[in-house]
Amino acid sequence: MGILKHKGAMLNDLYQITMAYAYWKNEMADYEAVFNLFYRKAPFKGSYAVFTGLDQVVDLVENFQFNDDDIEFLKSLNGVDEQPLFDRDFLEYLKNLSLDVDILGVEEGTVVFPNTPILRIQGPIIACQLLETPLLNIVNFDTLITTKAARVCAAAKSSPVFEFGLRRAQGVGAGLRSSRSAWIAGCAGTSNVLAAQKYGIPAKGTHAHSWVMSHDSELESFRNYGKALPNNCTLLVDTYGTEQGVQNAIVAGKEIEEAGGKFSAIRLDSGDLLELSKMARKALNKAGFKDTKIVASNDLDEYAIEELKSKGARIDIYGVGTRLVTAFDQPALGGVYKISALRKSADDEWQYKLKLSDEHIKISNPGLQRVKRFTQNGFFEYDVIYDELKGISDMAVNLRTGMTEYPEGDESEDLLIEIFKDGKLQYELPSVEQIREHCKSQLAKLSPRMKAIIFPDFYKVCLEDEIYQVKRDLLQAN
Amino acid sequence: MGILKHKGAMLNDLYQITMAYAYWKNEMADYEAVFNLFYRKAPFKGSYAVFTGLDQVVDLVENFQFNDDDIEFLKSLNGVDEQPLFDRDFLEYLKNLSLDVDILGVEEGTVVFPNTPILRIQGPIIACQLLETPLLNIVNFDTLITTKAARVCAAAKSSPVFEFGLRRAQGVGAGLRSSRSAWIAGCAGTSNVLAAQKYGIPAKGTHAHSWVMSHDSELESFRNYGKALPNNCTLLVDTYGTEQGVQNAIVAGKEIEEAGGKFSAIRLDSGDLLELSKMARKALNKAGFKDTKIVASNDLDEYAIEELKSKGARIDIYGVGTRLVTAFDQPALGGVYKISALRKSADDEWQYKLKLSDEHIKISNPGLQRVKRFTQNGFFEYDVIYDELKGISDMAVNLRTGMTEYPEGDESEDLLIEIFKDGKLQYELPSVEQIREHCKSQLAKLSPRMKAIIFPDFYKVCLEDEIYQVKRDLLQAN
Repeated sequence: MGILKHKGAMLNDLYQITMAYAYWKNEMADYEAVFNLFYRKAPFKGSYAVFTGLDQVVDLVENFQFNDDDIEFLKSLNGVDEQPLFDRDFLEYLKNLSLDVDILGVEEGTVVFPNTPILRIQGPIIACQLLETPLLNIVNFDTLITTKAARVCAAAKSSPVFEFGLRRAQGVGAGLRSSRSAWIAGCAGTSNVLAAQKYGIPAKGTHAHSWVMSHDSELESFRNYGKALPNNCTLLVDTYGTEQGVQNAIVAGKEIEEAGGKFSAIRLDSGDLLELSKMARKALNKAGFKDTKIVASNDLDEYAIEELKSKGARIDIYGVGTRLVTAFDQPALGGVYKISALRKSADDEWQYKLKLSDEHIKISNPGLQRVKRFTQNGFFEYDVIYDELKGISDMAVNLRTGMTEYPEGDESEDLLIEIFKDGKLQYELPSVEQIREHCKSQLAKLSPRMKAIIFPDFYKVCLEDEIYQVKRDLLQAN
Repeated sequence: MGILKHKGAMLNDLYQITMAYAYWKNEMADYEAVFNLFYRKAPFKGSYAVFTGLDQVVDLVENFQFNDDDIEFLKSLNGVDEQPLFDRDFLEYLKNLSLDVDILGVEEGTVVFPNTPILRIQGPIIACQLLETPLLNIVNFDTLITTKAARVCAAAKSSPVFEFGLRRAQGVGAGLRSSRSAWIAGCAGTSNVLAAQKYGIPAKGTHAHSWVMSHDSELESFRNYGKALPNNCTLLVDTYGTEQGVQNAIVAGKEIEEAGGKFSAIRLDSGDLLELSKMARKALNKAGFKDTKIVASNDLDEYAIEELKSKGARIDIYGVGTRLVTAFDQPALGGVYKISALRKSADDEWQYKLKLSDEHIKISNPGLQRVKRFTQNGFFEYDVIYDELKGISDMAVNLRTGMTEYPEGDESEDLLIEIFKDGKLQYELPSVEQIREHCKSQLAKLSPRMKAIIFPDFYKVCLEDEIYQVKRDLLQAN
């Protein structure tokens, strides 16, 4: 995604630049602000999300720059009076702007809950503002797909899931990133060759209907495939009808194995996967192919997989495409980026900020937020948002129920760690494999009731009592 | 999207490469094939789609190449026996492969209907096969969003629509491409600065809630904004409550205009947009701001806009984000790529091919397909798929109803034009502005009943009678 490296600054909403200009004009550009990136409601009617995208965030911040062409373009923008929007001095300033921000964040692969900051950006308000749009773009998408894939893998339980979505992904970059997300969340392989190359994901794939159709008969096509790739034989059996296809695969499979190859699997790609998988299992077993696997695909998602499994489908491996890589039933995560504190300079007091709204869910939390997570009996139990200047007491308010809680646990940890200090990277990015391992251990600490595909339990996200009182006072003052 | 230029060949499903290998091993690599890219069912329960993405298709085909790193990666792939999947000779062949294909296609911005080929690829089967995944990835997404945007603009009628979706788009590239699609389909501007720069789209944007929240009062924030950008004043009025926000905007607006600026608009971003727009219009008019516009945003799409308009909302400009750029209610177009003819060499007869299926809609059409479109009284009336070797008769079969039709019109045109011949580009890509103009004239020729947002009429896509008979014979032979 070279586009981020060179064009991250321009990958912006115009209003970030007009606001930057207005801050600059009003001598507010260096006011120090704190912004938090979080989501309000877990996607897919679930209870959680899995954060990813930090590699791109680092790429963005490290290479954030308006180049000469960009400045020329901004110079060409006019207002309603056909006069330029921006002073030349401002554009010069913008060209030389360096992002001296502190960024705290959770590690990639971490389970995150509604309203807890995932990234916290602190620094000159102009810099914070210019980061809003690209940060949201990156985090919203990557996190959405990782969350979806975690759900799909949870439904598949111990059965491997292969991600096959490239052809229906929302463009080139989305195809690449969603394969990464799927792998981190627990998928066992991808069809996407570029993603396999770039992220070290096992590449999976054998043949399509067109292979069968390019032969005079299905049987001939299976034989020819087996001759070419005797060590990669998953035969697609539904080109002309699955029942006959399974029989042809068995005939070809015997020849393949006699010639020293391995009849690894068949793939079902249409029809009633439940009944067809039972029929195919029976036919394969009868022919002595007890360890030949059954792969199934065709608009699968966590709901379909859960249903197939609960009804006893004889499917060993699930191929999931469109519905995973587009997060079909909710194709956007509503991540937001809200200011929570502001001061004119380091000598001034912080002013705590919150966004009001008639909709309760849209009221944001004030303060210099940190998050402490409590784990009990091996499972995540509470996240407590607290203010780093006020510290953490033993009392907090559950943000969903409004009830007072006394969070405790066998263990606790601060979730936000230092990623950038004064614009300089402080964090060593882990490998994708390490992120995958981290994600696995995170999901293992999420209680099964919270991982339920439908009607999950909700997690206890709390606001520490002192900062809760500040929030209440701010609400009453408005 | 530099990624296509350098990595288009690897942007593939592994099975395209394993099939390529199997064709090569079985001495079928140079069989000549014809593949068609089309969709089966119009998205959003509509009647049509608007094709875009040809610029990326050209980029892909012109730069299709496996480089040394790619070959090394493919060399590292093993089968179930831990032995390499591919012979070295094949990888050498792949490295030197040039895509000597003929590509026919419709022009970008053209209205396309179910089952008619949008792209037709003819050439060595191995080349056709390797193009499948990247072509589908490109065309599925771009066409989906252009279609969605055409619907949104149709609902908005003469009111301008601004596309504001970058922060919720499915990644960086999706944000960029969806802005292009939205502009081609008729949107009047984008918030996306990079897309504005790259595609010449008017850039739109003023300020966000954070601007207001970074001041001690809303009124002060409006005043400061007006001082900085007196020629770009759309004031966002819902940070603390819309009613008070409108009053503050009016106070600031008077000062802005007294100082020589222009109070162009207010923006509503939450709540009951219908009632709030009426209230705001009344207040603005009363204060003498009769030509100050009202912009509205907040999860809008074609359904919401149609409802707002039908109920008399006083909204002048619609800001549309998430639901447009993700095609929220159907985030994938099910475009497919099917073989329709094959021969061993130019000396052999063509074998016509079709994909069978128990699902009627999944049965493909055979032949060397072309499409003739008939226009009557200024509106598109029939698309006839015919075989270029058989020509076109006056009789055809409606693919949706199965009824015989006698297509005619005041005008007719062949939709598929030559894009590549023997791998060489034959077509001059129009500017984005020209594509937008073409799209406008295309949509003007689509009857209003087919453009209806819900329950549209369906278009008559027909299969010319001679090729229909071939299809019937092929179906009976199987």
